[in-house]
Amino acid sequence: MVKNPKVVIVGGGFGGLWAAKALAGKPVDVTLIDRKNHHVFQPLLYQVATAVLSPGEVASPIRRILHSAPNIEVILGEAADFDIAENRLILEDGTRVHFDYLILAAGARHSYFGKDDWETWAPGLKTLEDAVEIRRRIFLAFELAERKAALTGTHDPLNFVVVGGGPTGVELAGAIADIARQALKSDFKVIDTTKARVMLFEGSDRVLGTFAGDLSDSAKRQLEELGVEVQLNSFVTEIEPGRIKAGDEWIECEVVLWATGVAASPLGAKLGVETDRAGRVKVEPDLSTPGHPNVFVVGDMAHLLLENGLPVPGVSPAAMQMGTFAATAVIRDLKGKTRGSFEYVDKGSMATIGRSRAIAHVFGMKFRGVIAWLLWLFLHVFFLIGFRNRLFVLMGWFWAYLTRERSARLITGDADELRNALIFMEGESAARLLDKFSRPTRPPVQRSPRP
Amino acid sequence: MVKNPKVVIVGGGFGGLWAAKALAGKPVDVTLIDRKNHHVFQPLLYQVATAVLSPGEVASPIRRILHSAPNIEVILGEAADFDIAENRLILEDGTRVHFDYLILAAGARHSYFGKDDWETWAPGLKTLEDAVEIRRRIFLAFELAERKAALTGTHDPLNFVVVGGGPTGVELAGAIADIARQALKSDFKVIDTTKARVMLFEGSDRVLGTFAGDLSDSAKRQLEELGVEVQLNSFVTEIEPGRIKAGDEWIECEVVLWATGVAASPLGAKLGVETDRAGRVKVEPDLSTPGHPNVFVVGDMAHLLLENGLPVPGVSPAAMQMGTFAATAVIRDLKGKTRGSFEYVDKGSMATIGRSRAIAHVFGMKFRGVIAWLLWLFLHVFFLIGFRNRLFVLMGWFWAYLTRERSARLITGDADELRNALIFMEGESAARLLDKFSRPTRPPVQRSPRP
Repeated sequence: MVKNPKVVIVGGGFGGLWAAKALAGKPVDVTLIDRKNHHVFQPLLYQVATAVLSPGEVASPIRRILHSAPNIEVILGEAADFDIAENRLILEDGTRVHFDYLILAAGARHSYFGKDDWETWAPGLKTLEDAVEIRRRIFLAFELAERKAALTGTHDPLNFVVVGGGPTGVELAGAIADIARQALKSDFKVIDTTKARVMLFEGSDRVLGTFAGDLSDSAKRQLEELGVEVQLNSFVTEIEPGRIKAGDEWIECEVVLWATGVAASPLGAKLGVETDRAGRVKVEPDLSTPGHPNVFVVGDMAHLLLENGLPVPGVSPAAMQMGTFAATAVIRDLKGKTRGSFEYVDKGSMATIGRSRAIAHVFGMKFRGVIAWLLWLFLHVFFLIGFRNRLFVLMGWFWAYLTRERSARLITGDADELRNALIFMEGESAARLLDKFSRPTRPPVQRSPRP
Repeated sequence: MVKNPKVVIVGGGFGGLWAAKALAGKPVDVTLIDRKNHHVFQPLLYQVATAVLSPGEVASPIRRILHSAPNIEVILGEAADFDIAENRLILEDGTRVHFDYLILAAGARHSYFGKDDWETWAPGLKTLEDAVEIRRRIFLAFELAERKAALTGTHDPLNFVVVGGGPTGVELAGAIADIARQALKSDFKVIDTTKARVMLFEGSDRVLGTFAGDLSDSAKRQLEELGVEVQLNSFVTEIEPGRIKAGDEWIECEVVLWATGVAASPLGAKLGVETDRAGRVKVEPDLSTPGHPNVFVVGDMAHLLLENGLPVPGVSPAAMQMGTFAATAVIRDLKGKTRGSFEYVDKGSMATIGRSRAIAHVFGMKFRGVIAWLLWLFLHVFFLIGFRNRLFVLMGWFWAYLTRERSARLITGDADELRNALIFMEGESAARLLDKFSRPTRPPVQRSPRP
């Protein structure tokens, strides 16, 4: 009997997972490699960061999702390099993995535009660990203010800054405003949480810039109804512990969250083919890499211009469609059929803003407010992977909606870190101490004196 | 108007929380101080460690639980010392907090009998962080074995060791056996998870030694039905990365969990009064400390002999009763009434062993197997704090019971740690690498050559 061709998939996000699903039961042997054991349902990650959902409610073990496919094995590991001439993927420990076909779907992270040290003070939201870290910072800021106010009678202003007015930035800003004005109001006895300020900085002239202008305007209005201060045409040019610089102005803030800039996985650059400024691989119309028809790149790692001259957007439906297309191309190869060209089907888009607020552009129609939010809710629960998760998420939302409670607001982390942070609290702003709680520990940064 | 007396409570576990609840709405000003923002429902912590429940399902924000009591404020902080003569509690940053009454309920941790370096290789289960770390080790062991088997064709034996045959040890061992034999069986394509060995070491001649002999015997039988190898009269005398020594025999193992030994919070020793060998404060019959009638010690920090000559057991019902008693004593003081003596009401005890297995001794009757398990389930859900949690936990169990699935089996942690561990994997046993994943990072320990 002839051995089945070997397909190696790198990444268990939407692109890689949908490729694997399309290859389930087909005459190929599939190995999916991811450095995490779980697929994350990214559109709901901000709900973990803002304590509506628990990590387990937006993530599923990859091998569980694929357990019924006998031809797919799942391996925990990190792709580090390639030997394309020899059809080998090289793992982080040097192991060489043979492939007949390779589907790269390793996604993207945030870009700090060369200022990588900002990540410590302004984390982005891509992984479950990011979400738990952001949750910790948000709720810790309130706790430290309450503590300081209870023990000394005063506290620093509670300012939250979100950098970037795309979907993630809008979701985070809206949710933090809701937390401060509703969820925590009755739980804090000393401080007035409703006095917290939430500032959203966006460099362009509107939020959610990929939407039609009137929907962007609606989103801005809805954010402002929630109490978010939306700053358009405003770039954040410096980030230090406890403050940021926007334009010429330094602004004190307890928490800074980063929701702008995209950098594709560095794996793409190692293929030795052309990439765009964000490190995305410029793929052929069939999603293969130039000169290597058996190596596909899909999802946020891929750069492809559509016939209308626009790039395929970096959204989950596009990643799913690309993953499915690459898998189908493999099967068509094996059957001796032509691959054809990838076509992106835009099923519309939606963005949520806060409790019962959203905008949506679907079925050629525009929706705002509660109706858009219900649409968003329905679609996201529907697509969420795994029945248990679907059920739990729906219940979690229903509960949060009824009670305005955020039950998942746990501050977890190392006890030593907390103690260290609190030891230094005396006489210092709580703001400057949040850095103590960031995972990538570094020596404390000396703040330059104010002008 | 006269100022209300100030009651400071240290610790938001069962003892401190029940004291606070008993003081809600009473003519005292209460400050509860805990170094975490959440109360943990400890009896279900092992379910987080074994991926049936998510951290958010067994924990609630302390200030949320107490939010409706106008006279109670909650502060994040760590008690470090006392100035008892001046009625001051000293926090970790040196802040001095005045009290008229002090209720100490800072609990206990595991004791490694002087071998504190064992904690790195054999974590115990007291906090949410512990539970997530144990979950990570258990599921990572299977992942690393699968990876090695897929890439090299072979893997080291998958051995799990649990040290201590008390309730936590029995729960963990039973759950791991269930994970290996049921939950993961169909998800791993290369390794046979049912071949994993689970060994439980207990120094005395029976497991669950606080129960009647026939119930202990039943528990041992139920564990063995699940596939756990129960080793009685067997002390673990050495723990190194990748192996343990029991008696004269070294045993290779991927994961070691520590479920024995109790050490009270070191705060007790700072009171300057007599403590027992485990560091528990020897309290007066009214739970106050000798010479300081306004300082109470409750829960796992307190040592009190009952009239029958036995100590109050270190279980949650005892902590709740002691917390309530101390609060009531404060109120009785204010009313000019006598305090009386604490009396422990033993409502029975139960221990769960695995899916639908347990033992229980309640209402003067003994139960085993499914009936005991249903009793356990009912009582724990009933007492679980917070309606949302109650509902979610019940659903999580129901789902896990129906499907034998463990949906919360996320391996979270730093990506760098995983990469580092995997880099060193080649040529080494996966076992020795698990240490890379333990939070308190230390220089790698050199293994001595085998005899």
